[in-house]
Amino acid sequence: MNSGQDRRDGSGGGKRQEILAAATDRFGRDGYEHTKWADIAHDVGVGPTALYHYFESKQHCLFEIMDEAIEDFRSSFVAITTEERDPARALAAVMADSFELSEQEVHRNRVLVAEQGRLSHPSSARPEEEARQAARARTRDLEFAWASFLDSAMRAGAIPQSDARLLTRAVLGLYNSIWHWYRPNGIVGLAQVGDHFTGLALAMVGVPPQTLAPRQSAA
Amino acid sequence: MNSGQDRRDGSGGGKRQEILAAATDRFGRDGYEHTKWADIAHDVGVGPTALYHYFESKQHCLFEIMDEAIEDFRSSFVAITTEERDPARALAAVMADSFELSEQEVHRNRVLVAEQGRLSHPSSARPEEEARQAARARTRDLEFAWASFLDSAMRAGAIPQSDARLLTRAVLGLYNSIWHWYRPNGIVGLAQVGDHFTGLALAMVGVPPQTLAPRQSAA
Repeated sequence: MNSGQDRRDGSGGGKRQEILAAATDRFGRDGYEHTKWADIAHDVGVGPTALYHYFESKQHCLFEIMDEAIEDFRSSFVAITTEERDPARALAAVMADSFELSEQEVHRNRVLVAEQGRLSHPSSARPEEEARQAARARTRDLEFAWASFLDSAMRAGAIPQSDARLLTRAVLGLYNSIWHWYRPNGIVGLAQVGDHFTGLALAMVGVPPQTLAPRQSAA
Repeated sequence: MNSGQDRRDGSGGGKRQEILAAATDRFGRDGYEHTKWADIAHDVGVGPTALYHYFESKQHCLFEIMDEAIEDFRSSFVAITTEERDPARALAAVMADSFELSEQEVHRNRVLVAEQGRLSHPSSARPEEEARQAARARTRDLEFAWASFLDSAMRAGAIPQSDARLLTRAVLGLYNSIWHWYRPNGIVGLAQVGDHFTGLALAMVGVPPQTLAPRQSAA
């Protein structure tokens, strides 16, 4: 999950990434609605109007964060499933990788699941609407990658036959649900949550436990 | 899931329930943020100020809807698991029941999952804050009922040992995730979604498929 930080160069460069990082922390910690645009400006050491050089609005910034998060999930998924040809091992590696998160990436996941409803509502401002549509298209790409992978695994007999699209939604829904309640530095550690939910996701998909070696390291 | 409609009498009676029903439809269909208080007033045929006789604010009304939804889940869960003493059959019956939903109950589930983040943010208005705390307490009660049930099922050897609280969050998280994407009258019907996700939840919990009779009717 560490791939996206330097993905966008060009438009704004370092300061733009700084703003995205500061906004991710604020939105994740305090909630999107409870964060003021001016607080983010303060965090990165610029005046509030300077932010508009990079983003049209707070919501534009939110959609960019969501888009980047989804793209990181998608590119990691493709990289891991291309590298590891065994479907069961690939699934285990994808799950393990999806719990190797910095605190900022945990915040980003929280933002993604807490605010996903906003992606359903068209915006009248153009850059905002473009970012919204990009994030939605990215979500469809991620779901398509998962469903194609699960469908192949079913055809190969590695997992039981079922509806690959519904199964995709179940696996992603189970994973996303974690970020509604998980708090960094809470009672339950991330490694424990990761082990438990990885096991549950594999049981749901129907990977027989004995097909996996004792412990796979994430790609 | 049909238990709560007449639960609250006294304070306001029929008109109050009418408002809750109209607000549930609006929030579920158009989104909470995109619904105007005045639209709800219009739906139930009163002026906007008359609504304040029943609810302090739109958010107060939202929290009451959420509280009632959670309480319906909790009371159904308790009723079914008290009636059916076999843990595996009880789980299957709870899952089946949780997909027997009217269109308004689907809307209510959508509202519940889309707006659950609001329950984390204290309000300065008193009736609103009381409703928020009531909904949070109700959520804890629901989770406690599930965790206690799963823990007993583990002790009885009906399902594999694991962390009952994490497993509770997984099952509820999987179920809740459906309402982020499911639309009444969409391509995938509710019965199909229900069958698929019931199977997935039982696999996750570790109920051996052969322990269930061909088809249980919901209590």
